[in-house]
Amino acid sequence: MQLHLSTWQEVEAYLERATAIIVPIGSTEQHGPNGLIGTDAICPEVVARGVGDEEDALVGPTISVGMAQHHLAFPGSITLRPSTLIACVSDYVDSLMRHGFEGVYFLNGHGGNIATLNAAFSEIYASASLGHSSRRVRLSLTNWWDGPEVRRVSRELYSGIEGSHATPSEVSLSYYAYPDAVKSATFEPRVAPSGRFRDAEDYRRRFPDGRIGSDPSGASPQAGERLFHAAVRDVRNDYRAFAAGGR
Amino acid sequence: MQLHLSTWQEVEAYLERATAIIVPIGSTEQHGPNGLIGTDAICPEVVARGVGDEEDALVGPTISVGMAQHHLAFPGSITLRPSTLIACVSDYVDSLMRHGFEGVYFLNGHGGNIATLNAAFSEIYASASLGHSSRRVRLSLTNWWDGPEVRRVSRELYSGIEGSHATPSEVSLSYYAYPDAVKSATFEPRVAPSGRFRDAEDYRRRFPDGRIGSDPSGASPQAGERLFHAAVRDVRNDYRAFAAGGR
Amino acid sequence: MQLHLSTWQEVEAYLERATAIIVPIGSTEQHGPNGLIGTDAICPEVVARGVGDEEDALVGPTISVGMAQHHLAFPGSITLRPSTLIACVSDYVDSLMRHGFEGVYFLNGHGGNIATLNAAFSEIYASASLGHSSRRVRLSLTNWWDGPEVRRVSRELYSGIEGSHATPSEVSLSYYAYPDAVKSATFEPRVAPSGRFRDAEDYRRRFPDGRIGSDPSGASPQAGERLFHAAVRDVRNDYRAFAAGGR
Amino acid sequence: MQLHLSTWQEVEAYLERATAIIVPIGSTEQHGPNGLIGTDAICPEVVARGVGDEEDALVGPTISVGMAQHHLAFPGSITLRPSTLIACVSDYVDSLMRHGFEGVYFLNGHGGNIATLNAAFSEIYASASLGHSSRRVRLSLTNWWDGPEVRRVSRELYSGIEGSHATPSEVSLSYYAYPDAVKSATFEPRVAPSGRFRDAEDYRRRFPDGRIGSDPSGASPQAGERLFHAAVRDVRNDYRAFAAGGR
Amino acid sequence: MQLHLSTWQEVEAYLERATAIIVPIGSTEQHGPNGLIGTDAICPEVVARGVGDEEDALVGPTISVGMAQHHLAFPGSITLRPSTLIACVSDYVDSLMRHGFEGVYFLNGHGGNIATLNAAFSEIYASASLGHSSRRVRLSLTNWWDGPEVRRVSRELYSGIEGSHATPSEVSLSYYAYPDAVKSATFEPRVAPSGRFRDAEDYRRRFPDGRIGSDPSGASPQAGERLFHAAVRDVRNDYRAFAAGGR
Amino acid sequence: MQLHLSTWQEVEAYLERATAIIVPIGSTEQHGPNGLIGTDAICPEVVARGVGDEEDALVGPTISVGMAQHHLAFPGSITLRPSTLIACVSDYVDSLMRHGFEGVYFLNGHGGNIATLNAAFSEIYASASLGHSSRRVRLSLTNWWDGPEVRRVSRELYSGIEGSHATPSEVSLSYYAYPDAVKSATFEPRVAPSGRFRDAEDYRRRFPDGRIGSDPSGASPQAGERLFHAAVRDVRNDYRAFAAGGR
Repeated sequence: MQLHLSTWQEVEAYLERATAIIVPIGSTEQHGPNGLIGTDAICPEVVARGVGDEEDALVGPTISVGMAQHHLAFPGSITLRPSTLIACVSDYVDSLMRHGFEGVYFLNGHGGNIATLNAAFSEIYASASLGHSSRRVRLSLTNWWDGPEVRRVSRELYSGIEGSHATPSEVSLSYYAYPDAVKSATFEPRVAPSGRFRDAEDYRRRFPDGRIGSDPSGASPQAGERLFHAAVRDVRNDYRAFAAGGR
Repeated sequence: MQLHLSTWQEVEAYLERATAIIVPIGSTEQHGPNGLIGTDAICPEVVARGVGDEEDALVGPTISVGMAQHHLAFPGSITLRPSTLIACVSDYVDSLMRHGFEGVYFLNGHGGNIATLNAAFSEIYASASLGHSSRRVRLSLTNWWDGPEVRRVSRELYSGIEGSHATPSEVSLSYYAYPDAVKSATFEPRVAPSGRFRDAEDYRRRFPDGRIGSDPSGASPQAGERLFHAAVRDVRNDYRAFAAGGR
Repeated sequence: MQLHLSTWQEVEAYLERATAIIVPIGSTEQHGPNGLIGTDAICPEVVARGVGDEEDALVGPTISVGMAQHHLAFPGSITLRPSTLIACVSDYVDSLMRHGFEGVYFLNGHGGNIATLNAAFSEIYASASLGHSSRRVRLSLTNWWDGPEVRRVSRELYSGIEGSHATPSEVSLSYYAYPDAVKSATFEPRVAPSGRFRDAEDYRRRFPDGRIGSDPSGASPQAGERLFHAAVRDVRNDYRAFAAGGR
Repeated sequence: MQLHLSTWQEVEAYLERATAIIVPIGSTEQHGPNGLIGTDAICPEVVARGVGDEEDALVGPTISVGMAQHHLAFPGSITLRPSTLIACVSDYVDSLMRHGFEGVYFLNGHGGNIATLNAAFSEIYASASLGHSSRRVRLSLTNWWDGPEVRRVSRELYSGIEGSHATPSEVSLSYYAYPDAVKSATFEPRVAPSGRFRDAEDYRRRFPDGRIGSDPSGASPQAGERLFHAAVRDVRNDYRAFAAGGR
Repeated sequence: MQLHLSTWQEVEAYLERATAIIVPIGSTEQHGPNGLIGTDAICPEVVARGVGDEEDALVGPTISVGMAQHHLAFPGSITLRPSTLIACVSDYVDSLMRHGFEGVYFLNGHGGNIATLNAAFSEIYASASLGHSSRRVRLSLTNWWDGPEVRRVSRELYSGIEGSHATPSEVSLSYYAYPDAVKSATFEPRVAPSGRFRDAEDYRRRFPDGRIGSDPSGASPQAGERLFHAAVRDVRNDYRAFAAGGR
Repeated sequence: MQLHLSTWQEVEAYLERATAIIVPIGSTEQHGPNGLIGTDAICPEVVARGVGDEEDALVGPTISVGMAQHHLAFPGSITLRPSTLIACVSDYVDSLMRHGFEGVYFLNGHGGNIATLNAAFSEIYASASLGHSSRRVRLSLTNWWDGPEVRRVSRELYSGIEGSHATPSEVSLSYYAYPDAVKSATFEPRVAPSGRFRDAEDYRRRFPDGRIGSDPSGASPQAGERLFHAAVRDVRNDYRAFAAGGR
């Protein structure tokens, strides 16, 4: 059940049987020579919809721009500053609490969001902890790639070439979602370098084509389909535990 | 050309032939008994893509949550406070300027965004006007429903029952985009009341089912298709003038 | 009744018979070769006082600096960034609510304030809509020049040369308020160009002497007096409806 | 020379012979049984105009609402939070620097503004000190009542009954400016209590009619006239030293 | 009793017998050729501990970086912008109110903090005054050097050479606290110049070695010991009055 | 070399041979029945000083209050909201960059700070990445307990009872630093429960005495001494690599 494709009366009815909601959060940033700029938003969005369909879980609108300052030396990347993203997430959660939602489950597609999202959760919790608000909410962050099924399939398909940015797994999953957008590219070197980085200039100097540690040349919609089903299984279990209050 | 479905190298190539970008901006808010909560995001997104396909214009990620505080008494509505939306738009524009974009054309789907978006533009321009920044940018706001073609078709289809919120035209356009999401509902009264409003409680008291002045019972994907083509024609002309620097 | 010339006991007594207040809001910005920099603050202030005298309406202190970033290439113009103006208006309204005021009627003298003021209203309403506050308030924005009487007089006096900035009507009204400050100037061209603008540099390039579309050479205190009485009539009616809760 | 009654060309000419400007800053707050709520704005405004007339000094628009949280338990008082006032002052100064002003001389009418104004100055200076801006400015704060002439006249007129809030001197000066607004009241006790205070409730509990340590029953326009001339003399000397760069 | 060296159960027990807490606040900034950069934090910290030991007063963690923008042209100085310091102090106080503390007594070591701290107090009080919060708190600011005993000892030891920054008294007190950190230096001129200052460049130009008006060449741990005992006596009396609610 | 115990000339000299600085960052929060509220600030401070002494590394003032909203149901805990901590860290780094520091190495004592500190780093980097600043800096975060030597000693001493909050290792290290502050307490149950948590009420309900998963009953200064030397060894190596630009 997608919030954007529902009426308010349908949401009102949903709130009589559930108080949790899934919010996909991604990023708009370069993903190397053959990866889509929307990869990190597309992946959690498609997985969330899969889970939403199977679980009678409401899926809110995707936050498609996240914290991507380090990608800004590559054209097309867009970032929110962490302080802006904290304000956005806070307003989303406040709005949802207004309607009676008690749990907001963020399904994340971008490693660079994790720190800021956790800071946002603390900012929201601090309001109750400091006594400024009497409202309580449960917030949760899950990365679509972190469950056991996805890790198993990734390892099987891309052992040693998964890397950490512009990975063949995420590129494949985005290709499964948008098969018409499959790209071809050459990769030099085949497996990208690894390491740490700081600001955007520093990132581009270290990783000239944008990838970190990966070889996404073998990404395909078929692999993406396997990853999709694996991710839906992982996230279903995780979300069920969250919705039941166990997390 | 959609930013989310492009690689950074494709954006780099685009920037050699153009410096303008379209950013759809909508809202997540109730649209009456048969309107989708995502209506205001869906409409500019689908029109922007139509324009993007025909004009070789790059279309950025939709800002799908806008300023909707007045709808918060209806379940599912989400708002950003104006100060948060100003920060978001500012970060989008700063990111795009970083890459060499000189014009950002916001295609809007929600009347409630207009004031805050214009305030955001002033906040961004003020940085140059006060001498804090030497970077210059052109910002523009167009409502998808404001062009002559759309007005003509709306009048032809829904004269006297268009109203100003949950209009049959916007509901139709969203149905054209998502024909599987067509809803049926009863409307009492047939044409909703009109008037002004303040906060969320006040809005719901005055407009109990969420509509203002409209009768969207005759909304259909077929009408939506006509409106879609009309909107693409209107926006193409407007965007062309903007991209050429004439606006 | 002017707040600044009252004691707190007089305000306490006023609150027993009324809960609305008028707050003039203007701008400090160039108004062409013969217009005063304070024009946009002077006009609503003088009209508000006229209404206040006739209606037993309390008139608060004028916000004399508004959103004028686009005028900063002309010496003497001062702006608040939109985010600052939103904070100011919010603090004014919070203070007034503290005393039991239930309606704040902003009488505006500057087109450039409208978007930011409406954003400020939404920021204030959002506090109640999101459940952060249980206090309710009615906010209203009226431009002194928008009523039927003023429009009729302006048309009669300055048909075709009114323009949209540094208009003969506003210059005349400011001259009526400050007859010792009447200026003489030459105008080249007689009627200023029209069009849109962005930041301060852009504005000055398009409108070299600051006017937009106007010929204020015929402004006079006598014309101002007629406009003053027209504006007081317009605003009295509008304010009465507001104070009665009808708006 | 008043900024609000000048044209931009007059300001342009002024900037060829001077780079300093006077900005009156006051407050909107209760001033006891016979004091005007606008006292703290009226006093520096009238003195600044006196100085401006005699010294060819430009006088900017009065900031008429300041930091007055402690007066909010008395109807009609309005405050800006310190953070808002810092943002306002910062925007004023940034705007003035844009035009080439190098010195901004704040003439203050309210003790409660002093801490926040000094904090605002530090916030502005910090921008240069931290290397965020290369622009330099000189900022100064003078209280209209602090010069030797005013102190001498106050002592002569109101020795032992001046107190520290709603003083006979400030009430007199406001009466001189607005003789039609003279109020009569009874005072019980004749001389108000003195002491410290915290928030608004605390203030009203300690000082039930709003005065601190004063007996303003003998305030008069005639006394105000003497204080006016004394203040103009004090501030002229102080401003001259500032404008000459000596402060 | 030091908060940092206590358990939460010990604080819980303390709150049964007292509701006030001392928070030392200092600065990290140059203190001339022989003064320590931490002088302004060290001094109130050591005095607060002395008072805490003798009075059964709880001493919170020292805020060791304050408002020091004017010292940034000297290596090692660190500042918070006033707006940041206001936020910090506000969070400290909110946290302490959460536990039932009703009085927070800031013991200050840096003149440059005074304005911003008072602004922070007003920001905190404004929350109650505007009706945003029902919680009440008493806030107080005392400079360790302002009591009669310290003034007497300083005058006796350093009459005419105390100055206002990098004073022999504060240097001595810091030497008493950290005798291993005593520095030797030459001073040219012996007594530093005096005067006002603005931003960091301005400060360094006027006061090339960082001192203002002082000759700290005779600073010693022995003098510091006398000042320590004097300060503890002064602050004990002042804190007792505060804790008893008399201030 | 401690910044607080140095003169500005000594820092000036340091900057000729090095451009990195260590900044300890901790928290002020409950640490169970026998742990000190200052544990998380004390531990990185004492380790940083050890490293500073051995490596000629400059150690800045400890940030002793961090992000601890989840501990606020235990008396004495103090938090900064994430947005405040981001502003503080940003001001520290801006100040240090002003002097020519190119690398700031945060030595952390509190797991709850990690997300917010990383968000702060992104906020600072974003300024360069978005083109708002041309200044570059290297920022690094190291937890004192994360190195191989500390992990080896902890495992040897407290295998299976280390837990994740109020651990015997951190309590021991704080006892080594402040042997006079050793506490005795009873623990029921001996090993505290484990799990996740949200806001302060939630935390206290799950972990009634404040510990998570630990049995700190065997903490001792002697164990702390071993951990101290282990941590200094770990951090020295890590800092050396950072200072050399390798991280």
